Parts: sequence; structure tokens; C-alpha cells
Amino acid sequence: MKITIKDVAREANVSIATVSRVLNGTGKVNKKTKEQVLKAVKKLGYKTSTIPLAQDLKIIGILVPDLFAYHYSEIIEGATETLRKNGYGSIIATFNGRILEEEVAIEYFFTRRVYGVIVCTSEEDDEKLRRLLDIAIPVVTVDRENTDFRFDSVNIDNYLGGKMVAKYLLSKGHKKFLHITGDIDLYSIRYRRDGFKYQIEKSGGRVNVLESSFTTGTTYKKLKEYIRKNGVDFTAIFTSDDLIALETLKVLYDEGIKVPDDVSVMGFDDGYMAQFSIPPLTTVKQPRKEMGKMAARLLIDRLNPEKRNSVVRKMMMSLEIVERESVKNIER
Amino acid sequence: MKITIKDVAREANVSIATVSRVLNGTGKVNKKTKEQVLKAVKKLGYKTSTIPLAQDLKIIGILVPDLFAYHYSEIIEGATETLRKNGYGSIIATFNGRILEEEVAIEYFFTRRVYGVIVCTSEEDDEKLRRLLDIAIPVVTVDRENTDFRFDSVNIDNYLGGKMVAKYLLSKGHKKFLHITGDIDLYSIRYRRDGFKYQIEKSGGRVNVLESSFTTGTTYKKLKEYIRKNGVDFTAIFTSDDLIALETLKVLYDEGIKVPDDVSVMGFDDGYMAQFSIPPLTTVKQPRKEMGKMAARLLIDRLNPEKRNSVVRKMMMSLEIVERESVKNIER
Repeated sequence: MKITIKDVAREANVSIATVSRVLNGTGKVNKKTKEQVLKAVKKLGYKTSTIPLAQDLKIIGILVPDLFAYHYSEIIEGATETLRKNGYGSIIATFNGRILEEEVAIEYFFTRRVYGVIVCTSEEDDEKLRRLLDIAIPVVTVDRENTDFRFDSVNIDNYLGGKMVAKYLLSKGHKKFLHITGDIDLYSIRYRRDGFKYQIEKSGGRVNVLESSFTTGTTYKKLKEYIRKNGVDFTAIFTSDDLIALETLKVLYDEGIKVPDDVSVMGFDDGYMAQFSIPPLTTVKQPRKEMGKMAARLLIDRLNPEKRNSVVRKMMMSLEIVERESVKNIER
Repeated sequence: MKITIKDVAREANVSIATVSRVLNGTGKVNKKTKEQVLKAVKKLGYKTSTIPLAQDLKIIGILVPDLFAYHYSEIIEGATETLRKNGYGSIIATFNGRILEEEVAIEYFFTRRVYGVIVCTSEEDDEKLRRLLDIAIPVVTVDRENTDFRFDSVNIDNYLGGKMVAKYLLSKGHKKFLHITGDIDLYSIRYRRDGFKYQIEKSGGRVNVLESSFTTGTTYKKLKEYIRKNGVDFTAIFTSDDLIALETLKVLYDEGIKVPDDVSVMGFDDGYMAQFSIPPLTTVKQPRKEMGKMAARLLIDRLNPEKRNSVVRKMMMSLEIVERESVKNIER
């Protein structure tokens, strides 16, 4: 006889909704009730239908450079959510930008026979990834520069993102810009810069580029130096991401430069803190969670034998500008 | 003949330092040089001494509730760094607060024969963890309420942390407080609250507690409501973490309440954005990276047969107050 959630509820003397809250970790349940439910689950040997036993668990490997701040974490969150709903578990490996470790992680996924791999990573690993394909382990890449290898992929159009920001700021009357970059060895950061510069210069505007990095504190220091040396030779700043924008806001505050009255600031990402900065940040929403979900969906499709030979799919997720209070129209 | 880094450097026609930079991902190397180095590595079949081949790789499983923001991410960063230096790889699993998934992840680590497990998690899993111990897989818990099970553990003293904040704010002349909590089902959050309340009330001060959560936007909404209903019936706010403090700063800013002139705000964590908030946040530094490193060290000790039967070690990492600009002395 199959044990159902009803049996657990009866045994624990609580409602079905309560059992569900405890097992799914949604909503609040007091500690005593929680214990009752877990006791009943254990006693009856209940297993939910969506979560298989570990030995039957189909595992997907997810490889990311790091877990700093929100970027890869939110991609992972989206991916694991969709995988779980489809009966897959996931394990994550990071490689902190070290190429050899990235190879080891891929090898590890390979030797432990994962069902598929989601890779958010650099461009030097084509050959290793191809080995996975050769032995029919499906690979989906996320946020990774396109190459001629035939992987399914999920990306945003970073070049277009840069152009969108440029058009938005130009429409507010700005003509002199400072662009502050993150780590320039990331293709996404170069593309944002190039799209931005292209659009501004095409319209007769001027962009100075300040090469910074995502390491906390770098932008604060570099922007202070820049202003000391050049003064405020811009009316708007575009930063590679929101964390750099936050450091930028702090520099301007410390220098007595008002945002957006004296200088406009625009970020990129719409990270979880962008709405609570002072002032709230106008930025570009990058759908990280959706990117993860889409990657999982592409991978699950590949794991369906009927779909295995379909064409390679390159998904471009759309971007949208989120208007808050850090950009001023200076035409009026 | 063993291939060394010298051979790679000679083959690629670059310096040893450059090879090291490419392989370790430290410092900048231009793309062409990078490719030369990788080509040489491949041609010669070079393997660094610290990174074993995947099939020989000793893997440690790390289990965390989630990867949101900085907390578990930084613990993982510290742990993987120390593990890597000692020749261990790591894989990460998340369970998003769902108890059954936590069990599945532990089972998975178990069936795939990891060498050890680092668990940052809830309290309901003692039995599962014990199964790992029973088959001699070492377990170290991090940031987890102590139980009578004999796991090595790394924690901070959250109760003491609450008391430290109370003493600090009392020393600045504050007597009426608002404490805003994160998810109260986390033991760490309850302990911070209890330590804070104990110390304040012992000194004749008054604490109102506003139960909020770590979900982005909750504190912003709840604090606005609180102020609308009760006015500003406090001179200082202590929040469970820095993200809640950031939302708090934003509410106060929007209400025209000056920090720290009208109200002082103190956070907890010293997250990476605390130094760039407006004003910069006075907070308690929780040594997340060091906690991860310590957990890895305890685990590595357990994996050393000579040390395997030593006593259970409960490490308490120390906390320190980081003074910035969000707290005012109102005695003067």
C-alpha cells in the first residue's frame, strides 16, 4: 500500500497543508508540529512523489566560476528549481577562474556519470565540453561566449544591453559619459562596453572608460582617483553591474556630488539591492533566474530520447530597463 | 620524466610566472599568451602538483540551505580554498530549506562515497548525519545549533553577538530600541535577538521586536507600517543582518529620518556592501570565510587516520564590532 500525504497528516494529527509546509519548507510551522510531522514521515516511511530516493536520483552537474554576490547563485536557483520539479537533483562545482580546476570538475562530472551538465564558464574549455558531448552527456552553456561548438546555450545580448543603456541616457539629454567596467577579461563586460560606446559615439557623444574590477573596493578607489585627476567631466555614469554602481554612488556622496541632480548613474543587472540604494538605482534587468530555468529546460529536453537529435538551440533572453531614481533628464 | 612548470614555460616561450598566472587564474594575461600556455600544457600533458586527476580526486560534499547573498557562499569559498590547498575537491548541494531534499543530498553524498561532508543546515537531520558517522564518513557542521550528537562543529556565538551589540549601543547612550529580525525559525536569529534583549532589559532599556524576514522587500514594508502605527519610538535599530539594515536605511531616508542624527542603525554580518551604504554601516563582523576554512581544517584532520579518534571539537569563532558611521553617541 502506497503511503500518501493523507496518512502522514492523520498520523501526525495535523492538516495536509501543514505536512506540505513542513516538507516543502514553505510558510511557518512551529517546532513541535514540525517534529510531529517528521516523526510521522519517518514512522510511515513516506516519500514524496517528486523526490526520488538517492540511489534513483538523476543528477545534473552545474559548473560556475564562483558564488560571489547574486549572479551565478540566482542562475543556479532557477536551474535547480526547474530540475527538481522534473525529478532531477543537482550538484554544483565552482572553479574560481582556475582553468585546470574547471577541467577537473568537468572530468569529475564525467566519471560520476551525471545525466547532463550546465556550464556557466569561460571559453577555453570547448575541447573538454566536447568530450562530454562525444559520450552523449548533454551540455547546456549559460552566460558564455558563443563559439562554433554545437552546445545548446542561454545568454543575454550584452552588446544590445550596452546599446539600450546608451539610447536611454541619450534620450535624457546626456552627451558626456564615464563608463566604469568590471573585470574586462569577461566577454559579457567587454560586449556591454562595446555596445555602449558604439551607440554613444554614433550619436556624437563622448565616453571615457575607467577600467575597474568586481573586487570590492576597487571602483571606490579608482573613481576617487579619476575625479581627483579629471574632475567631473561627465553628466552620466554607466557601470558594468549594480555593485559597481553602489560603490559609485558612495564616491559621489562622499564628494558632495548629488545623484541624479549633478550626475546620473545607471547600473546593470537589477541585483537584489538595487531598489534600496540611495537613490534607488535605474538599471537593466538581467533575468538570471529565468536563464537558469531555461537552461534546465533545454537540458531536460535533451534527456528526452525523442528530442535528442533536434537542432542546437541558442536562446537569447530579453533585457529590460528598470527606471528608478538615479537618472535625471537634463534636457529640460 | 616528470613535466614541470619550467617545461611548460619553455614550450610556450613565456615566463614561469605567466604560466602560473594562467593556470591559477590570478592576474591578467592576454588572450594569445593564455592560449599559448594552454597549448603547451596540453602538448606536454602537464599536471600541477596540487590538482590531482579527476579519477584520483578526493571529493568533499558541502551541503547548504541556499546560495542567496553572501552568507553560505562565503563559507563555501573559505572551505573550498582550504580543501583545494590540501588536495581535495568539493561539490555543493543546496536544499532550499526542504527537509526531504536535505536528506536526499546527504544520501547522495553517501552513495557516491565522498570522503567527508560539511553541513550548514537545520537541526532535524541528526539521524541522517549519524548514518554518515556510522559508516565512518566524517562530518563537520557549520552555523548549526548544537545538539548532543558528536559532530565537529564551527559556529559563532550568536547570543554573545546580540549582547555585544546591546552593550555597544548602550554605551552610546541609547535606551529605546527596535530590533528587526530575519526569519525567526533560524536558531542564529533567535539567539541574536535573545542576547540583545537580555542585555538591554538587564540595563533597564526597552526593546520592541519587529519580526521580519530575509525575503527582499519584507523589512521595507514592515518597518514603514511600524512607523506609521507607532511613530519613531526608538533612538536605535538593531537588525538581524546587513541586508535588513540596508532596507532599514532606505525606509528612514524616505521618511526624512536622518541616520545617525535622528536614529542609529546597527547591522550584523559585515557583508560586502556594508561599507558602501549611505551612511556606511556599523555592524558585527561574522568571519564567514574563516568559518569555512576552519570547517575544512577540522574535516581534513578527521581524514588523517592518526587523528581520527580524537575528541569532538566545537569551534567558536570570535566576533568583532566594526565601527562606521551609522551609530551616534547621544549622551553628549
